[in-house]
Amino acid sequence: MTDNAAPIRHVARASIVAVRGATVERRDDTLTGEEPMEIRAAGPGQEPTAVAVTMRTPGHEAELAVGFLRTEGLIDGPKDVAGVDVGDPAVLAQPDDVVVVRLTRPFDPSLVAERHFVASASCGICGKASLDEVAVRCDPLPAGRPSVSRDTILCLPATLRDAQKVFETTGGLHASGLFTPTGDLVTLREDVGRHNALDKVVGAELLAGRLPLHDRVLLVSGRVSFEIVQKAAVAGIPVLCAVSAPSDLAVEAAERLGQTLVGFLRGDGFNVYAHPERIAGL
Amino acid sequence: MTDNAAPIRHVARASIVAVRGATVERRDDTLTGEEPMEIRAAGPGQEPTAVAVTMRTPGHEAELAVGFLRTEGLIDGPKDVAGVDVGDPAVLAQPDDVVVVRLTRPFDPSLVAERHFVASASCGICGKASLDEVAVRCDPLPAGRPSVSRDTILCLPATLRDAQKVFETTGGLHASGLFTPTGDLVTLREDVGRHNALDKVVGAELLAGRLPLHDRVLLVSGRVSFEIVQKAAVAGIPVLCAVSAPSDLAVEAAERLGQTLVGFLRGDGFNVYAHPERIAGL
Repeated sequence: MTDNAAPIRHVARASIVAVRGATVERRDDTLTGEEPMEIRAAGPGQEPTAVAVTMRTPGHEAELAVGFLRTEGLIDGPKDVAGVDVGDPAVLAQPDDVVVVRLTRPFDPSLVAERHFVASASCGICGKASLDEVAVRCDPLPAGRPSVSRDTILCLPATLRDAQKVFETTGGLHASGLFTPTGDLVTLREDVGRHNALDKVVGAELLAGRLPLHDRVLLVSGRVSFEIVQKAAVAGIPVLCAVSAPSDLAVEAAERLGQTLVGFLRGDGFNVYAHPERIAGL
Repeated sequence: MTDNAAPIRHVARASIVAVRGATVERRDDTLTGEEPMEIRAAGPGQEPTAVAVTMRTPGHEAELAVGFLRTEGLIDGPKDVAGVDVGDPAVLAQPDDVVVVRLTRPFDPSLVAERHFVASASCGICGKASLDEVAVRCDPLPAGRPSVSRDTILCLPATLRDAQKVFETTGGLHASGLFTPTGDLVTLREDVGRHNALDKVVGAELLAGRLPLHDRVLLVSGRVSFEIVQKAAVAGIPVLCAVSAPSDLAVEAAERLGQTLVGFLRGDGFNVYAHPERIAGL
């Protein structure tokens, strides 16, 4: 067995508000690390070419870079790899992580352009370095409103599920549902990509002339990455709820952008990771 | 409520082998649609600029394109949109889907390069049009081997879960586990991105000089997209298992590449979507 037990693992601590039935308490929680990493490739004597930026969990940087180049068909095997520069371990947890794969043969930069390493899941701007940029692009979210009750939040998943038809048939779709502050479903979209489901909702509202979405609550079916927070905030959505976990970068972005972020919304409970003041009684 | 009930929805039918305890039967199943779509933008009199390619579920193409441009900050509101050309509805379900958003003002193509619309989840080559290309890049997978027992497959998820530490703490990570044909875990990697978890596994094996992975079984924690099948096949993995559902394009790719594809692996059962001949007794 390879070295599975000793990754460089980035797990952040957060202070959350946990709602379980009638009980509300502040507690510490653990978040998954999410950070951008740029993969570059360079032949002998060449300047490195940027091949891709990926949002990833820190750890195993060299493996990720080499594996990406292999599974995308840009290298063949170990004989192609002269070495991997991951930079100073002390600054790994930085937004500007760059991994350079040094090759034993020349690298053709035109391969990158030809192969369309473009957004599978709409990366957009990446990471902490550009949180400032997101903040500038977002008009401020309305402070303290809308006010949403705990019961309304608890009922969102059932409403979303009832409205989903394809999900129940195939089990393969993400959903993004836009609600009024009292829990009425306004727009539902589904997609294999969670970013696409949200983009479809925002596009529908934009074409209907209803942006910014200041009086709306969003529920997404999966996890919350930085980019989901970013996209929702750009569209003006003040309350973002998810069935599963947010990443550390998602929580940091929501905190900074003034967005209420709810995760693990299931059964009779949920966790609030940022700006609980929009939820009545918290 | 907006028009949630009438999407153009692409759901494919498939013939699968369903294993439930001691029962094995062929049955029809429903798959989620997955197809590439290219988003382009053009100002008055301009040639369209390709902004992004996304793997998406067909339906609501105009909304997806406009929503993407908005949430990525490339347009402001409906006043920027003169119209959206989605092409002939009769050929929507084609791999070369292209949506052109016509703007009321000039579009600056340099915005696309500046904003790094590169692989969040490593798109690589996209779609049916390039299945041929994937087939060419893959050395053939070994026909009929390895042989894997049903019990071995059923035990993979528990082995993976036991080996995962962070997942249980944060609930926020995808896992990718590489096993021997008798179910021993060889390499486990985790990431917020499912593609990254797989790339880390392949990179670890490549750096250890163990590619191609012809005598290995892979288990991934989430759904199976086209790109997961492609990446696993390029690394030489003949048996791919997943806890959740595959897309239609994933099934088509596995069929074509000679890869055994198992989905909904949970409890005492699983579905086989392609090449069941590597599973003993099927």
